[in-house]
Amino acid sequence: MTMTPLLPNPADPRLSRAVEGIDENGQSKSISVIEERPLTIYLNSQEIVTAMTIGDHPEYLALGFLLNQGMLKASDQVTGIDFDEELEVVVVRTAGVTDVESKLEKKTRTSGCAVGTVFGDMMAGLEGLSLPDTPVHTSTFYDLSFQINHTPSLYMETGAIHGTALCQGREVLAYMEDVGRHNAVDKIAGWMHLNNVPAADKILYTTGRLTSEMVIKTSLMGIPTLISRSGFTAWGVDIAQQVGLTLIGRMRGKKFICLSGQHRLVFDQDLSQIPDDNKKMQRKGARND
Amino acid sequence: MTMTPLLPNPADPRLSRAVEGIDENGQSKSISVIEERPLTIYLNSQEIVTAMTIGDHPEYLALGFLLNQGMLKASDQVTGIDFDEELEVVVVRTAGVTDVESKLEKKTRTSGCAVGTVFGDMMAGLEGLSLPDTPVHTSTFYDLSFQINHTPSLYMETGAIHGTALCQGREVLAYMEDVGRHNAVDKIAGWMHLNNVPAADKILYTTGRLTSEMVIKTSLMGIPTLISRSGFTAWGVDIAQQVGLTLIGRMRGKKFICLSGQHRLVFDQDLSQIPDDNKKMQRKGARND
Repeated sequence: MTMTPLLPNPADPRLSRAVEGIDENGQSKSISVIEERPLTIYLNSQEIVTAMTIGDHPEYLALGFLLNQGMLKASDQVTGIDFDEELEVVVVRTAGVTDVESKLEKKTRTSGCAVGTVFGDMMAGLEGLSLPDTPVHTSTFYDLSFQINHTPSLYMETGAIHGTALCQGREVLAYMEDVGRHNAVDKIAGWMHLNNVPAADKILYTTGRLTSEMVIKTSLMGIPTLISRSGFTAWGVDIAQQVGLTLIGRMRGKKFICLSGQHRLVFDQDLSQIPDDNKKMQRKGARND
Repeated sequence: MTMTPLLPNPADPRLSRAVEGIDENGQSKSISVIEERPLTIYLNSQEIVTAMTIGDHPEYLALGFLLNQGMLKASDQVTGIDFDEELEVVVVRTAGVTDVESKLEKKTRTSGCAVGTVFGDMMAGLEGLSLPDTPVHTSTFYDLSFQINHTPSLYMETGAIHGTALCQGREVLAYMEDVGRHNAVDKIAGWMHLNNVPAADKILYTTGRLTSEMVIKTSLMGIPTLISRSGFTAWGVDIAQQVGLTLIGRMRGKKFICLSGQHRLVFDQDLSQIPDDNKKMQRKGARND
């Protein structure tokens, strides 16, 4: 793959701003704070959701959200994605009426809110899903962590933000950040779809927890390996085991834990070459939430 | 206040389970993982949302969610809250039809999903809101952080979970945890409502980021001080300034930053008595997300 990697742009003035406050000594102090703005996503004429986002890549976010919610199928023909910055609205247009527009129309009249419905549909998309069984080398995990922790990011600038990186072998292809970790993953999904990037040979790295939501999104995207600095939830582990996702958590310094898909791991890393978890070497400790 | 504090119960077997995996050496290892389960909240016969939660205090969560979303008013007469563990459903019942049942009925037919609507309503509830202007002593922040960091919790047991504590002066009244930080706050709101706990003299402490959502919930609850170990979003700061919420972030060791409501602070802490941020002294670094 010869694509230029898509990396965070901490210099983008729309994404953060300086705010004046006071510190513990009562001294005035200015810090850089991440922006957070609403973005309302439409599928054709149907309003779907208002997401809170930093505001970069609205087209990727909208497309990825709809794909990951199962509202848009890979086979649906997307004819355009229109973003109106002033209205904070993004509209994904398809050639025909989607499955979901008709479903939503019907279901919301009886159940009042689509959230439960959407969730049910997501789980349904996992039935019968089985991720590819190719081996994955643990040395790549250490390489990728190092690269991601040393890439300039909004996290380094402002904190309080999550990052997700799509990787192939030892290469970071796309590294997205957002106040919502689900948004960062959705932006990756949108980017993959628009660039026709296949999923089966990829690794997804996230700074966030391995909840059911993160595991479901990764699985539906068809990515067979998900790595995080953070911990697990039991349901996230259950779903990963069901679909054969290799799930690595608590990855810091030399350490990690794999709770699903461990048969795919090839332990090729000489651990004596890896420093222990050292905050100076890390993405500032990933103490965001 | 002579109420017994409501604290986390890490010994509750429903809230975590041991999962077997392998570590970075390929050795088998068992770790304790937090549970995460769906809970569908009804307001009378109206399905509202499915929340992902650890599953403790479903009644507080449902009531607090509805209050914080503005779907239930403090004046609505709650006649019962029924939790069905098997169905994973909780129903909040009121004496009459609520404002929201009629609103949802109408709006979802036109817009398809209540999410945007609900959000709009939340912002509307902030108009004209002004939180009480009583002084607050910085020494209490250090006392409370110390107590919360030393209270046995699910976080210490499993990680990957957020905590929120309602405090009065130097006393922790209720400390809730959940996989979603919004759920932990909603459980606090439900507990306050059912126990007729006034808000104006309280402090809310959270391990999570100070996003617009957290600031809106705290403000609507009427609590004038919000403290976090984590960072800020710009919109969260904007809303806090608008309603006069004292907003303290990045509180670790001696350090904190106040970006709103700083005029209320009384700097009475001798900082030489506070150790620097020391991971051993802390709630394991709050590295969850």
